[in-house]
Amino acid sequence: MARYDLQDIMSLEKYVRISLINKITGLKSANLIGTKNSIGNSNLAIFNSVMHIGANPPLLGFIMRPLLAERHTYANIKETGYFTINMVSTEIHKQAHKTSANFPSAISEFHACGLTETYIDDYPAPFVKESKVQIGLSFQEESLIKANNTILIVGKIEKIILPDTAAKKDGDIDLESLEAVGIGGLDTYYTCKRIARYQYARVEEETKKID
Amino acid sequence: MARYDLQDIMSLEKYVRISLINKITGLKSANLIGTKNSIGNSNLAIFNSVMHIGANPPLLGFIMRPLLAERHTYANIKETGYFTINMVSTEIHKQAHKTSANFPSAISEFHACGLTETYIDDYPAPFVKESKVQIGLSFQEESLIKANNTILIVGKIEKIILPDTAAKKDGDIDLESLEAVGIGGLDTYYTCKRIARYQYARVEEETKKID
Repeated sequence: MARYDLQDIMSLEKYVRISLINKITGLKSANLIGTKNSIGNSNLAIFNSVMHIGANPPLLGFIMRPLLAERHTYANIKETGYFTINMVSTEIHKQAHKTSANFPSAISEFHACGLTETYIDDYPAPFVKESKVQIGLSFQEESLIKANNTILIVGKIEKIILPDTAAKKDGDIDLESLEAVGIGGLDTYYTCKRIARYQYARVEEETKKID
Repeated sequence: MARYDLQDIMSLEKYVRISLINKITGLKSANLIGTKNSIGNSNLAIFNSVMHIGANPPLLGFIMRPLLAERHTYANIKETGYFTINMVSTEIHKQAHKTSANFPSAISEFHACGLTETYIDDYPAPFVKESKVQIGLSFQEESLIKANNTILIVGKIEKIILPDTAAKKDGDIDLESLEAVGIGGLDTYYTCKRIARYQYARVEEETKKID
């Protein structure tokens, strides 16, 4: 077994440490966050930290790195109050990865990375046409994480669009049929294959498969 | 396409809404959080919200539901200052799911769910012996998310143990060889298969595979 104590971790070369700590938590979701600024320039960036915050009201969050560099996604959300979250599937994972390059604010990652900017029902933020799941959100709140000046951004879901075939009546979503990818750290992409869906676990019962 | 506006989402039956909103973000990591209280009773609970916060210092976070019910994980972390994060692999995913049942505080989920409580280097929180990646953390800070009273808990990594074969010299971790699982919502488990690892994306270059 490989063992690292805090001192070992801090002694690692910077990019080795970044990779190790980014990958140690397992699979992460892959989503593209779409925004535009007040003069209409659009921005698109891949995030591996989109998380569920709650269902009532429907809230999602993500982690924004410290504001030491220009952060177009953050600036645009604060300017307009809106953003979109768009699922990354196998088909577009390479284009999605490309959005992490350091494009200047006047260049839209949509065009530069081969993805299509689209607007739905006049929602004030751009969606990714190629994404099979598209979510429109309004900015809700932010929390500064003091330990390293990252920021948790929370948005309220106002719109969801996904294929009929993937959205089941009971609220289930089949991520395998959507070809949703997972990310290891910042650079490795994985496809997923369904094992099983289980009933809500109860103390006295054996856990049964739903399907 | 299926379309939901905020009003449609809020009109859904409660468990349909919970499933839809929990699954809409794609694959989530699967981890078991181990704690014990000040009189030594251990607790183990599955979380799908473990996230990377930063690498310098090495920080991870997760979302704790509102403190309306007894939350043993939260209470134990606040009592002792320590917790562990343990990766869920295919082999133990069913036991891991079982930890979500509502066990009373006197019963340890380790024993009740068929997982082995283990201690490493006198670290003051219990690890899961069957987990291929074991992480020891000290409590760092918490942030209340006002929109729904969930709490972001942040811990500092003090110890990492994983198989030599999975930990590459450059900090890469092969999640497929570890058989790490991903979770859809609260109830569906997925295995992962590696597509590729890509170089850091640059504006003027085509994105190349590393391996």
